[in-house]
Amino acid sequence: MTGYPKFSDRLVQAIRSKKTPLIVGLDPRTRQLPGPLSPKSKDPKVVARSFLEFCKSVVDVVAPLVPAVKPQMAFFEQLGPPGMQALWEVMVYCREKGLLVILDGKRGDIGSTAGAYANAYLGANKTSVWGADALTVNPWMGRDTLDPFVQTASDRKAGIFVLVRTSNPGSSDFQSPESDGRPMFVHVAEAVEELAKKSVGECGYGSVGAVVGATWPEELLRLRSLMPTTLFLVPGFGAQGGSASDVAHAFDEQGLGAVINSSRGIIFGWEAESRKHLAGSNWQKAVELATLESIAQLRESTSAKNL
Amino acid sequence: MTGYPKFSDRLVQAIRSKKTPLIVGLDPRTRQLPGPLSPKSKDPKVVARSFLEFCKSVVDVVAPLVPAVKPQMAFFEQLGPPGMQALWEVMVYCREKGLLVILDGKRGDIGSTAGAYANAYLGANKTSVWGADALTVNPWMGRDTLDPFVQTASDRKAGIFVLVRTSNPGSSDFQSPESDGRPMFVHVAEAVEELAKKSVGECGYGSVGAVVGATWPEELLRLRSLMPTTLFLVPGFGAQGGSASDVAHAFDEQGLGAVINSSRGIIFGWEAESRKHLAGSNWQKAVELATLESIAQLRESTSAKNL
Repeated sequence: MTGYPKFSDRLVQAIRSKKTPLIVGLDPRTRQLPGPLSPKSKDPKVVARSFLEFCKSVVDVVAPLVPAVKPQMAFFEQLGPPGMQALWEVMVYCREKGLLVILDGKRGDIGSTAGAYANAYLGANKTSVWGADALTVNPWMGRDTLDPFVQTASDRKAGIFVLVRTSNPGSSDFQSPESDGRPMFVHVAEAVEELAKKSVGECGYGSVGAVVGATWPEELLRLRSLMPTTLFLVPGFGAQGGSASDVAHAFDEQGLGAVINSSRGIIFGWEAESRKHLAGSNWQKAVELATLESIAQLRESTSAKNL
Repeated sequence: MTGYPKFSDRLVQAIRSKKTPLIVGLDPRTRQLPGPLSPKSKDPKVVARSFLEFCKSVVDVVAPLVPAVKPQMAFFEQLGPPGMQALWEVMVYCREKGLLVILDGKRGDIGSTAGAYANAYLGANKTSVWGADALTVNPWMGRDTLDPFVQTASDRKAGIFVLVRTSNPGSSDFQSPESDGRPMFVHVAEAVEELAKKSVGECGYGSVGAVVGATWPEELLRLRSLMPTTLFLVPGFGAQGGSASDVAHAFDEQGLGAVINSSRGIIFGWEAESRKHLAGSNWQKAVELATLESIAQLRESTSAKNL
């Protein structure tokens, strides 16, 4: 592993090289697949082939434009073993195309079981079976359940993003109640920042990051200042309602410190009114335009313009 | 689905039929497989075949003795797509042998993604691809992220077990801080009990259950009284240190209301000093003895004797 950079350094390098913090979520949904890739039957094997073709075609468009993709495991798991095989092939393809893969599985469990998840997913450099550069992780079960992920990530120069403050409306139920004068998400944030500090790379950020939703701009500001060493993965931009100015606080002055995810708004780009004419065989053009528009929005309203 | 009982009723019926609340966790670990099933190479396909054979052999022993098994997804995910195929085959085999399958994946995500997980796993009656009777679910992201699981479980007569208070030492980090005078796990417990009430079956328990660790006996008592309609899935019995008397509070007077999981203590039963002579080709006998001992301990120290 000599010479192979830490996850945070690889991600920052990729952000600088593509000059954008935008990443693309790969969330294939059967009913929204473009006409030419619509599966001919409901057989999971047939649908899995469609998902694979669709994701590869999206990757062909976005690979030159963005630093990373975020496959959402649930949509692949939905198809059973053929779906898992398709996910595996999608991840291989992403790496071949030079994209970092942030796998969105929100895993979490106790000791040796967490160790098994970490072993499964973390390590893009031929060090794990699945080969993800990073994995999203759920902290509810406690700090000791994060440790096996952190250790494996450190050993294999991979990363994790811990769910600190999620983008959904109901995230306030258990993340926002205050204890000792701070909301629970701040308790988690403190634990994550501590782990980020211990894994800091040459870029100044650690390989233990945080998921912080675009839908809570004020909390994003607060968390940015509480977590100066932590890379943010920001979902909720685009289809979920977060605007480019909402995510501005996620960045440092150089435009670093965060990746901003958009899934549906990009991969089903022809569903937007302005791109409806591209539905059908020109769907990839719609994906490209949607990606470029998101990149432009982030440059206009955030310090990503300084990249 | 007419005539097909709700999950809680099926589970209670199975507990009554087997006269025990013990369930067996299927957590295959390469290094602990019995000699005859030890994989000949590290190739994930080869190891996955060993996992499948091992789990089927364990199921052969425990199917007449216990109501349900709990496969731990992490160990299968660790082997990539071949591991997922093996898990799928294990689940088919469990159902053929008349066991309920409580799949331990601790999934959780926002709206439509949670819907995809629910669609993937929930439904044993040929209603889902994976065919689990129930799935463990992580509540950290909020009540709205539980809803798609609850809805699908209701539609398909399946169940979920929400992580309320987990068995690991670090679970106090984010589950125990107090807000409004109650620890966070009680906040979650209140939400779960509300959902359990809405899904109550003829047995008096709902199909939305709670994971409550055996390692916190006083909290188990408190939660039992706060959650009268909620089925408990209790991990931490056996290898993790919880004793039969520690879990006594999980039950009502009839010995119902909870299932008690043991994984390593049973499936690697020959590792106990008293059963070391059964290592090797007699390993299944050790699994049988370990199961019978656990059943006896629960009968001796809890109201499970009344089943």
